[in-house]
Amino acid sequence: MEVKTIPNIEPIMQKISAFKNPLYNRDFLLTWEQEETTLRILLDLVEVLELIHKHGRRVSVFPHGLAVSIFRDKSTRTRFSFASAASLLGLALQELDETKTQIAHGETVRETATMISFLTQAIGVRDDMFIHEGHEYMQEVGHALDESFLEGILPQRPAVINLQCDRDHPTQSLADLKHLINHFGGIEELRGKKLAMTWAYSPSYGKPLSVPQGIIGLMTRFGMEVTLAHPQGYELLPDIIDIAKKQAQQSGGAFHQTQSMQEAFSDADVVYPKSWAPFNVMEERSQILKGGGGEAALNQLEKRCLQQNANYQDWECNQEKMALTRKGAVLYLHCLPADISGVSCRQGEVSADIFNRYRLMTYHEASHKPYVIAAMILLTRFSDPAKVLRHCL
Amino acid sequence: MEVKTIPNIEPIMQKISAFKNPLYNRDFLLTWEQEETTLRILLDLVEVLELIHKHGRRVSVFPHGLAVSIFRDKSTRTRFSFASAASLLGLALQELDETKTQIAHGETVRETATMISFLTQAIGVRDDMFIHEGHEYMQEVGHALDESFLEGILPQRPAVINLQCDRDHPTQSLADLKHLINHFGGIEELRGKKLAMTWAYSPSYGKPLSVPQGIIGLMTRFGMEVTLAHPQGYELLPDIIDIAKKQAQQSGGAFHQTQSMQEAFSDADVVYPKSWAPFNVMEERSQILKGGGGEAALNQLEKRCLQQNANYQDWECNQEKMALTRKGAVLYLHCLPADISGVSCRQGEVSADIFNRYRLMTYHEASHKPYVIAAMILLTRFSDPAKVLRHCL
Amino acid sequence: MEVKTIPNIEPIMQKISAFKNPLYNRDFLLTWEQEETTLRILLDLVEVLELIHKHGRRVSVFPHGLAVSIFRDKSTRTRFSFASAASLLGLALQELDETKTQIAHGETVRETATMISFLTQAIGVRDDMFIHEGHEYMQEVGHALDESFLEGILPQRPAVINLQCDRDHPTQSLADLKHLINHFGGIEELRGKKLAMTWAYSPSYGKPLSVPQGIIGLMTRFGMEVTLAHPQGYELLPDIIDIAKKQAQQSGGAFHQTQSMQEAFSDADVVYPKSWAPFNVMEERSQILKGGGGEAALNQLEKRCLQQNANYQDWECNQEKMALTRKGAVLYLHCLPADISGVSCRQGEVSADIFNRYRLMTYHEASHKPYVIAAMILLTRFSDPAKVLRHCL
Repeated sequence: MEVKTIPNIEPIMQKISAFKNPLYNRDFLLTWEQEETTLRILLDLVEVLELIHKHGRRVSVFPHGLAVSIFRDKSTRTRFSFASAASLLGLALQELDETKTQIAHGETVRETATMISFLTQAIGVRDDMFIHEGHEYMQEVGHALDESFLEGILPQRPAVINLQCDRDHPTQSLADLKHLINHFGGIEELRGKKLAMTWAYSPSYGKPLSVPQGIIGLMTRFGMEVTLAHPQGYELLPDIIDIAKKQAQQSGGAFHQTQSMQEAFSDADVVYPKSWAPFNVMEERSQILKGGGGEAALNQLEKRCLQQNANYQDWECNQEKMALTRKGAVLYLHCLPADISGVSCRQGEVSADIFNRYRLMTYHEASHKPYVIAAMILLTRFSDPAKVLRHCL
Repeated sequence: MEVKTIPNIEPIMQKISAFKNPLYNRDFLLTWEQEETTLRILLDLVEVLELIHKHGRRVSVFPHGLAVSIFRDKSTRTRFSFASAASLLGLALQELDETKTQIAHGETVRETATMISFLTQAIGVRDDMFIHEGHEYMQEVGHALDESFLEGILPQRPAVINLQCDRDHPTQSLADLKHLINHFGGIEELRGKKLAMTWAYSPSYGKPLSVPQGIIGLMTRFGMEVTLAHPQGYELLPDIIDIAKKQAQQSGGAFHQTQSMQEAFSDADVVYPKSWAPFNVMEERSQILKGGGGEAALNQLEKRCLQQNANYQDWECNQEKMALTRKGAVLYLHCLPADISGVSCRQGEVSADIFNRYRLMTYHEASHKPYVIAAMILLTRFSDPAKVLRHCL
Repeated sequence: MEVKTIPNIEPIMQKISAFKNPLYNRDFLLTWEQEETTLRILLDLVEVLELIHKHGRRVSVFPHGLAVSIFRDKSTRTRFSFASAASLLGLALQELDETKTQIAHGETVRETATMISFLTQAIGVRDDMFIHEGHEYMQEVGHALDESFLEGILPQRPAVINLQCDRDHPTQSLADLKHLINHFGGIEELRGKKLAMTWAYSPSYGKPLSVPQGIIGLMTRFGMEVTLAHPQGYELLPDIIDIAKKQAQQSGGAFHQTQSMQEAFSDADVVYPKSWAPFNVMEERSQILKGGGGEAALNQLEKRCLQQNANYQDWECNQEKMALTRKGAVLYLHCLPADISGVSCRQGEVSADIFNRYRLMTYHEASHKPYVIAAMILLTRFSDPAKVLRHCL
């Protein structure tokens, strides 16, 4: 049975059909845990799902069931992306938030994970507040689900989908990758392209490290020349730096680090200027929050962090910096919302003129996220997603 | 293909089929922006959808997708009506509320409108708190959606549905109109009937003007003799008064204004006694709220408003006033909840005996709202709604 | 038309088909209001729905519509169970909570019940905070729905489903019963088995009485020998004690009361050690809460209650007590979450070693609740649920 009625879909479906899926009944937590083929097939599934939606076709692959979201943080973009993916696949969204219930670590996680899962197919978790914890929490949920599935308590093994943790932000980085592929005309076209993942100034504090970590942990796998730039004190988790280095070597790309935004921008094909918190601030903040430590301590930390940031107000993506890039062809990326100088703040990550030039392209970039999430659910919940999709179309 | 199995549905379907739909890919914001034919077809669609639900037929015209609701105000009736319409058409509801995220004006509106819309078909907005702003906000959302649709960022153009703004409350007024049509036996039967839209006393403050504005802006189009009554200081937006006047002239109806509830009730066929805030209070309140102005200022304003209201405690719909109407045939309307004297407050909009006589009829009145919303979505999202409905039935 | 493709389902379906359903267009509030046959058929439906889900079959018996939940209390388990049941049957969940709207007694209940019901099939209510009130509230909602259905305002009569009130917790007790049936190999195997429903110590206060009341009000109907144990002052509602006595006599079982946990455990086949509040504390608390009575009064009451509880810290389910039971075969039940000594509190309802032995079995116990709710909806919304199910499968 061919899916003839949607143009261009059949060759992609055949690639997916031929794939032996290692993700079935597992979780999607970190891109660097996945084989490269898995990521390529996931991107193919994104393409297929986008075509299906564009042609108004029904793909409710699940006869019923829940998609549960757990957010420790406020969120619009990710929340709506997850809701959209759920609707696309035929799942009902149910949010578990800490204002409605209490979710905690230890015994309670194990029990709650099962109690919310009797008819659940996917659990999307965003837990990026506490460094050294978000990823561990997701693993803990996964282990609880494994046990309850093996014991026959759950008739299906819901997949944990990482909607952002302290280590990685795979739905963002894969949406970004899909955007790069579309922009440059294919995944092979990324080879040798220079991507500058750089810190940028923002008058805010406490932004997680998972976006830059996700980008260097993913883009180094496809032959890109990735340069990471940030002022001293804004380091990322060292083991993810190691992963980026190793991957760059294996893929024939490169991974460089610098403390100069200018150097990163020089001859770049892609720039990703984005603020994040100083590493030690993240650690202290986690300690304070975990200790239930007072407002006073947090305010002090915030003050200190903002002072530290203020030393680097010239880390702005603007006309002058963009002049250093591979002119005319450079692509600006952002996970949104950006801190735009003179618009959302006095002085921010990007000047208004540059942002405006790329504004609609950042919307295109964001548009892939719902499909990335849906593709993750398809790969974790079905051993042969192509077969299931064909059956539905 | 005829829809034979549901009695009485086929002739209405044929009328709808013959209609050239100007609303496709647009928004539904104000009734007076729409051609009269469009409103008549919308009421036909309401009838069809009510029959479909009564006969337990499936109408999920959308294969998947979101219906997003944005409420700046608490709401039960409208929230459940929107949720019901979404379910009827096969959309998953996703609420965007300001406790969960932040939505604001300017740059942020533009971005957020797109970020929540990648798989969205309808965005219902209730924004009636700020005079001179709610309608503008909805237009702003609509413009953002236009841009993202034209740029190919959104594969579909979600419709903005006005669930109450500072100018109009079209889902309410059209539900009221459907109730009148059912009660009097046809839309042509409304010609020459006298409707009294009158202010009524309530010990509350800050009720929006959109219900009376919506009523005079709609009922004047169908040959009704509409009388608007309120004490001095409780004026409506002047340009909507002008619209009502012009429409009454064109439709062969009439539009009168008076400061006497008795005069309005005299020989009325329909009475709609309902409280609203003094115009200048609404304006001051908007200023205070926008200025982030203190509790103290709001409390002062409330006190002053309640004092002003208290001068008009005799503006109650009661036995004595109802005796002035076209007796035996008069219909009482209310958008609910009513402030009932001796029940929900000491002294209110309506006496308990009068309200009780019409209580169940006000429930009938309210029952049309989910279908009005669904009909608006059908007209804005499909160029030929009749064809889509036939295909589903 | 036989449902051949799911093994073991056909004989159960035939039993259900032969059943004359007295619940159609009614509510499910208390198990002891139902005929025994109705409860047996409900358990058969639970089995059928579990098989259907396990085999990944679609059962969206409703073409569209809402399942509304009203919770006066925080809840994870029950909320997700209700959401799962809604998804299973094809209904969209819509929560009505008091933070989003206001729901009250009297006039407002009557109106709100209708306003949320125009396309609604089921309304799940959890209202266990106020003794002598939760059940009355649900009846009030039911009466309002009866009226609006009879008057033709609602095209269907939504069912009120008791998700826990001050009297009964039928979705819990029936899930527990299904667990017992699975464990002992059939409902007839429960005959003569001794079940100890006993109070247990917990450092918390204000836990409702509905779980123990639900258990003694249900398990006495199937020939079980039910023993209720609690310290003086922890009595249950006296009329439910009477119901338990009468039912035990009729079913050939037994109902005993004791103030000794040891006596209850002696030779028990099933133990259900679970904390609940002192009766007079529940009454005082209701008075304080209803009177809007200050924090101070509630804190005083809590202090007094915890002191009273503290006299009975030896009411713990532990190795020593379990040694008194019918060893090797005894089953431990809990509605979760349990207060586990040394895990979730210093000293609680159950020792960690005993809880761990039964932990996974309590998850099995909980797993039936979504299906119990779905079965209640099927029985209240369809005169012939078997026919509807066959049509869907």
